[in-house]
Amino acid sequence: AKLWGGRFEESVTDAVEKFTESISFDKALYKHDIMGSRAHAAMLARQGLITDSDRDSILKGLDEIERQIERGEFAWRTDREDVHMNIEAALTDLVGEPAKKLHTARSRNDQVCTDFRLWCRDAIDAIVSRIKHLQVSLVKLALKNEGLIVPGYTHLQRAQPVLLQHLLLAYVEQLERDASRLLDCRVRMNFCPLGACALAGTGLPIDRFMTSEALGFTAPMRNSIDAVSDRDFVLELLSANSITAIHLSRLGEEWVLWASEEFGFLTPSDSVSTGSSIMPQKKNPDPMELVRGKSARVVGDLVSLLVLCKGLPHAYNRDLQEDKEPVFDSVKTIMGMLEVSAEFADNITFNQERIQNALPAGLLLSVFQEKLQDLSLAELRSISTAFDEDVYEFLGVENSIKKFSSYGSTGSECVSSQLDYWVAKLDLSRK
Amino acid sequence: AKLWGGRFEESVTDAVEKFTESISFDKALYKHDIMGSRAHAAMLARQGLITDSDRDSILKGLDEIERQIERGEFAWRTDREDVHMNIEAALTDLVGEPAKKLHTARSRNDQVCTDFRLWCRDAIDAIVSRIKHLQVSLVKLALKNEGLIVPGYTHLQRAQPVLLQHLLLAYVEQLERDASRLLDCRVRMNFCPLGACALAGTGLPIDRFMTSEALGFTAPMRNSIDAVSDRDFVLELLSANSITAIHLSRLGEEWVLWASEEFGFLTPSDSVSTGSSIMPQKKNPDPMELVRGKSARVVGDLVSLLVLCKGLPHAYNRDLQEDKEPVFDSVKTIMGMLEVSAEFADNITFNQERIQNALPAGLLLSVFQEKLQDLSLAELRSISTAFDEDVYEFLGVENSIKKFSSYGSTGSECVSSQLDYWVAKLDLSRK
Amino acid sequence: AKLWGGRFEESVTDAVEKFTESISFDKALYKHDIMGSRAHAAMLARQGLITDSDRDSILKGLDEIERQIERGEFAWRTDREDVHMNIEAALTDLVGEPAKKLHTARSRNDQVCTDFRLWCRDAIDAIVSRIKHLQVSLVKLALKNEGLIVPGYTHLQRAQPVLLQHLLLAYVEQLERDASRLLDCRVRMNFCPLGACALAGTGLPIDRFMTSEALGFTAPMRNSIDAVSDRDFVLELLSANSITAIHLSRLGEEWVLWASEEFGFLTPSDSVSTGSSIMPQKKNPDPMELVRGKSARVVGDLVSLLVLCKGLPHAYNRDLQEDKEPVFDSVKTIMGMLEVSAEFADNITFNQERIQNALPAGLLLSVFQEKLQDLSLAELRSISTAFDEDVYEFLGVENSIKKFSSYGSTGSECVSSQLDYWVAKLDLSRK
Amino acid sequence: AKLWGGRFEESVTDAVEKFTESISFDKALYKHDIMGSRAHAAMLARQGLITDSDRDSILKGLDEIERQIERGEFAWRTDREDVHMNIEAALTDLVGEPAKKLHTARSRNDQVCTDFRLWCRDAIDAIVSRIKHLQVSLVKLALKNEGLIVPGYTHLQRAQPVLLQHLLLAYVEQLERDASRLLDCRVRMNFCPLGACALAGTGLPIDRFMTSEALGFTAPMRNSIDAVSDRDFVLELLSANSITAIHLSRLGEEWVLWASEEFGFLTPSDSVSTGSSIMPQKKNPDPMELVRGKSARVVGDLVSLLVLCKGLPHAYNRDLQEDKEPVFDSVKTIMGMLEVSAEFADNITFNQERIQNALPAGLLLSVFQEKLQDLSLAELRSISTAFDEDVYEFLGVENSIKKFSSYGSTGSECVSSQLDYWVAKLDLSRK
Repeated sequence: AKLWGGRFEESVTDAVEKFTESISFDKALYKHDIMGSRAHAAMLARQGLITDSDRDSILKGLDEIERQIERGEFAWRTDREDVHMNIEAALTDLVGEPAKKLHTARSRNDQVCTDFRLWCRDAIDAIVSRIKHLQVSLVKLALKNEGLIVPGYTHLQRAQPVLLQHLLLAYVEQLERDASRLLDCRVRMNFCPLGACALAGTGLPIDRFMTSEALGFTAPMRNSIDAVSDRDFVLELLSANSITAIHLSRLGEEWVLWASEEFGFLTPSDSVSTGSSIMPQKKNPDPMELVRGKSARVVGDLVSLLVLCKGLPHAYNRDLQEDKEPVFDSVKTIMGMLEVSAEFADNITFNQERIQNALPAGLLLSVFQEKLQDLSLAELRSISTAFDEDVYEFLGVENSIKKFSSYGSTGSECVSSQLDYWVAKLDLSRK
Repeated sequence: AKLWGGRFEESVTDAVEKFTESISFDKALYKHDIMGSRAHAAMLARQGLITDSDRDSILKGLDEIERQIERGEFAWRTDREDVHMNIEAALTDLVGEPAKKLHTARSRNDQVCTDFRLWCRDAIDAIVSRIKHLQVSLVKLALKNEGLIVPGYTHLQRAQPVLLQHLLLAYVEQLERDASRLLDCRVRMNFCPLGACALAGTGLPIDRFMTSEALGFTAPMRNSIDAVSDRDFVLELLSANSITAIHLSRLGEEWVLWASEEFGFLTPSDSVSTGSSIMPQKKNPDPMELVRGKSARVVGDLVSLLVLCKGLPHAYNRDLQEDKEPVFDSVKTIMGMLEVSAEFADNITFNQERIQNALPAGLLLSVFQEKLQDLSLAELRSISTAFDEDVYEFLGVENSIKKFSSYGSTGSECVSSQLDYWVAKLDLSRK
Repeated sequence: AKLWGGRFEESVTDAVEKFTESISFDKALYKHDIMGSRAHAAMLARQGLITDSDRDSILKGLDEIERQIERGEFAWRTDREDVHMNIEAALTDLVGEPAKKLHTARSRNDQVCTDFRLWCRDAIDAIVSRIKHLQVSLVKLALKNEGLIVPGYTHLQRAQPVLLQHLLLAYVEQLERDASRLLDCRVRMNFCPLGACALAGTGLPIDRFMTSEALGFTAPMRNSIDAVSDRDFVLELLSANSITAIHLSRLGEEWVLWASEEFGFLTPSDSVSTGSSIMPQKKNPDPMELVRGKSARVVGDLVSLLVLCKGLPHAYNRDLQEDKEPVFDSVKTIMGMLEVSAEFADNITFNQERIQNALPAGLLLSVFQEKLQDLSLAELRSISTAFDEDVYEFLGVENSIKKFSSYGSTGSECVSSQLDYWVAKLDLSRK
Repeated sequence: AKLWGGRFEESVTDAVEKFTESISFDKALYKHDIMGSRAHAAMLARQGLITDSDRDSILKGLDEIERQIERGEFAWRTDREDVHMNIEAALTDLVGEPAKKLHTARSRNDQVCTDFRLWCRDAIDAIVSRIKHLQVSLVKLALKNEGLIVPGYTHLQRAQPVLLQHLLLAYVEQLERDASRLLDCRVRMNFCPLGACALAGTGLPIDRFMTSEALGFTAPMRNSIDAVSDRDFVLELLSANSITAIHLSRLGEEWVLWASEEFGFLTPSDSVSTGSSIMPQKKNPDPMELVRGKSARVVGDLVSLLVLCKGLPHAYNRDLQEDKEPVFDSVKTIMGMLEVSAEFADNITFNQERIQNALPAGLLLSVFQEKLQDLSLAELRSISTAFDEDVYEFLGVENSIKKFSSYGSTGSECVSSQLDYWVAKLDLSRK
């Protein structure tokens, strides 16, 4: 029997109850639901809509419920349908009448949007911190491998020698944009829906600016229908996650390749690889295979959410209950992918000898391709006297790398100054 | 410490263990894993690769493990990584040495594919049975609403009157194709990978035809690399589910529309709708909103699986571990969508009066549009003498429906004979 | 015969040539390719890498080519493979030797990224301007319909009365976030890859800051491998488009519903609807159906691009040639959707009478539900009896709307002040 | 001015006309539209709905129009909106009055479904023939490389030696399922919607069985609403294409890997690779990179179509006009992918020496792992010591492969008999 069921003669069938419940997943919002209720109760009291004593009972009850949940002692009930009604009903069980007044000037429609935005805001902070952590791991890996030159590939064919540091910093750049994209999303979502009520607002003298501020939002949302209907904030979050996931899938692919016997460029430590009972010599780079593989579910989660919202009229539709699981899954997955990538980066060694063998002289020529093209030998010489001498003997790979000088290039000095930039930005030290 | 970890000096880190484990979801395969092991043990014994007494110990142990799992008494262990190693290690704990011989001529690679195909085969049977059940509900609903005429829409504008039965049978047709698509998929997937071992087969004298037959497969798969690498059987299953989900999303949309006050064509019973504490007059068709909404995750699951498999080289890659959750989710979701749609169909009534009002005389004219077009009045009369008289008075909607006579049309007789077809096919009776 | 084909003994087969060509679609980049070449030539000359006279020949030649293309007189050649080689070879045909020097310190890899970023930057500006235009249309529509009250829906059931203006402004809010998301994307993408060359940079003394500035970029990209490999800027653009498309699909759904005979809330003018030869009374809201429908391809384009980039190793892979068509299609589609939505908004009238009939007294009660919450049953009854008697006379819908007073609510004053905000922001006047 | 525009006072705006037209892409259906019209005209005449002389005029006119189109002389007109109206209006221009009678008992709704099914049926036949062609190329490649042993990989780590033939036949198996999936789809779609008219059928005495048979359909569709509303036949086709595309993306990945200098297992001929002006030594396997990359758009097309159909009520909605372009694109792309893969297969050579070097002795041990399982540690050591001494001399890789004997394994005899199977099935000869 649902809480609102009393108005109906029959209660819903078991199949319907099971199909429509959300408590099995939306209880993940409990902390933010309680946070929202605290702010709401404080506001109601200051506006004279409930008494201070009611407010105090409510706050005390919420504290107790939060404690119970965190200790695993809270009895979640499916017949109470969702996280909001579970907490509200438990509050009533605990503190009686005052609990009922908490629903004044609030509806589950604005409540869930508020909870969800708070949850996503925290999620972004958690993801961004893991992005930074991975950047740190990559920069440290670069610092450890000063001077190591690897083939740069196009079409998976060796193209030009580049510093490994340069390649590692390419990932760092991509991750920086990933973080910045999330932070833009955070700014855009950080507006408070609370007080939009069911969809139209309320006639009661609430103060939306007070609750908004208490919850750390920039401001209340300007339009109550928009506040309860739109889910673009999660679409944007899952889009950002998808792009990060694609970046990591490319890192995964690359490190899986490099760990193959054919490349042999890197060896993961035992702590981040698996063996095979059949093949004792194998060291499988499973974590990076799974990083690559798990990008798929992050993309799938985004697609779910896009399909979900397509063609829905305003304002709330029950379909929207389906918005949570893809978001929870996407956030959990991307955090795992970032953590494990960092752990992998911390636990690999590059095999200088194998890499060296992959840098044949032919590769060096390409360094100068731009000068050779379509120019006469005389012109060639006028540009660079180096061409007067034997390029194969005069240059080693190390020298060839030094020739790169353009901003952003793989030249040793350029890369070194970029590395300085990141060491400073990430608050590391070069020693 | 993983079971294969002994070969390594260090065990994997916690983050990696958590990221790479699959036992939290692949334990859903336990029944089919045990089924496969039984068949494998029997075959090994008959081929003389293990003794009969070993086989008997194994079978007894497997029985006990199955009992424990079904009673919820089995201790799943994350350090034993996946369902196969949990069961195998538990078997060793139970029966000792013989258990170790079960792994003869088998690898986790062919084992998981076998389990998964068995699971999917059962899933298809379960989905098809729910499709039939929904078809039955729709046909019964049609039988209950003999003669009810509703507007047929194009562009969501009323276009032509049709029998409600005709519209309901359109869904039945679509569901029939859904079932047939799944059955084609079942035929195509019903080949046995067991004995492909890691990827290359084995030199031991196993009998793949015996295990294949014991497990109800059509035949063993012809190519061991294909057997362990390809996941097209689940891609096809999830494609079929997606198409069914799209069909159901359209049914959901239609019934949500029809339940609105503006249409007012149907009323769900209390047992399949929800109310609102604010709005006592409301009867929300939540189950059908969620049917519409949940189509999104079925599509998302398919996309996950497609992205997962894109660009993977042969044979097994750890990425493929990610193939299970989307399949489990898709199957569970589609089954719920079918069940709840049937339950909804069983619990709605159509509102004759509201529907009648939506059938203005203008609609009737369209019935004859084909005759009116470009013909002179004289020609018109030669084709149908009805045009001599006043179409508004002469015809009621009922008469207009009777005019439809082409095969497959909404004419009463055509629909009645189609209904006969489905009543017979679904083993119902008209009374 | 390809331009690089001379090095090979055979040229590629016809099937391969047809499969790998990109000129059929990447010629859309011609303007930005020429823009990039102008900046590059100017820089090469200032750095002494080409003479001023060479630069002048190049610039003159580029002017001529641009003129030819714009007049449709340019002969695009498939054997010249892509837009870059078509223009470069045509330049050589026109001005001879100097043209060949334009390729100094540049590769197709950095060239195409530069062109594509410039193209996307323009695309964003064009989309944002269409977003503003649609906002203007919606605000004007709101101004025209002062005071019109419509049902607000949840679960597509009438829930609370709201001002039509309030609902229209909800769309305006969503579009504002859409524009802001695109502008964030623009800021993040506005860095210059030119000078990254094939992937590693160059040893020639180029000035990347000069070309970057000449092309209106914020700065050159810091890492040459990142510059030529990453496609996150288009993934982000297509994500933003997808969210906008979902918003518009919801608008499309809503207006298609409202245009149905059952709702009857709006009538499109003939200039934005279609009729039916069968049904002269019908006015189909085709443009909004297609707005809803075309959201699908915008989502599909995003998925294509995500799948494309998944699992690609660094740096350039030929796969990436496939990045253009989804972007071109997404941008073209979203622009059409925005334009046509604005045109539709400019050409609809709301049907006051039909809307009024959809606002029964029951709806009003909900307005006061929040006040009833804290009252005893006895108090409730005394109030509810009063409502039974007086509500029809005492309250009109107009009065009920006025009761809403919270910030962001549908109350007349709140909405009026929001409307002021948008009128000012969009540079409109209320008269 | 649209053909139906006469009923309206205004015609649609240019933006709307441009946004809603379909002639730019649906003219691809011309052949099937004419085919359908021929069958319809013949039926109308036999049923006495038009005269024989009218029919003859119509058929003659259609012949002329087909000729014009095929010669590129037909003037497609956007103001005639779509392929049906272009041809119908041109027919009227050509033969006058009789042309107008062709629309008797037909609507664009059933007409477009009929055309589209006919088109898809042909598309399936064309794809299946290209699948067979690729199978032939792979089997021929296998025949050419008798006895060549390559490493089999798991986790992209060398796992066990396998015959190259065995790996090539794994693809052949996958393609066989791809073809069978398409053929199932063909059977399911091969029912005729013609005569469903707008949505409800007709009262005229048409013979749907006659047109169905004339067009090669199995039977007319049983339900007219289903006939014009559902698009599951294209969803299924695009699902099948997506699975094939994923298979080919895996082949693409594998061959790109094998063509890298690090693997060095295969060399494409000049006719299927590209070089680099920078790097004369490079042979880029572009066609296979693009095969891998183009899988993305096939998946994107499927997603577009799924999103399109989600949540659409019955029967026809204008959204459905968007169903064609993803289907055309998917079919064109998959055909190109198949053709080019076959061409690539025909033009590669495997590098025996490089492959041999990738088969170290360690790999051989795994072949015998299964036999080691049941032995005591003492026995194990005695055997493993023997291996230490003799394995290089005693066993060649060739001998190790012969040890595989299970059905479907990589053993020489097993593979040889599988090859016989495919040679026979594909009508090839071994010499």
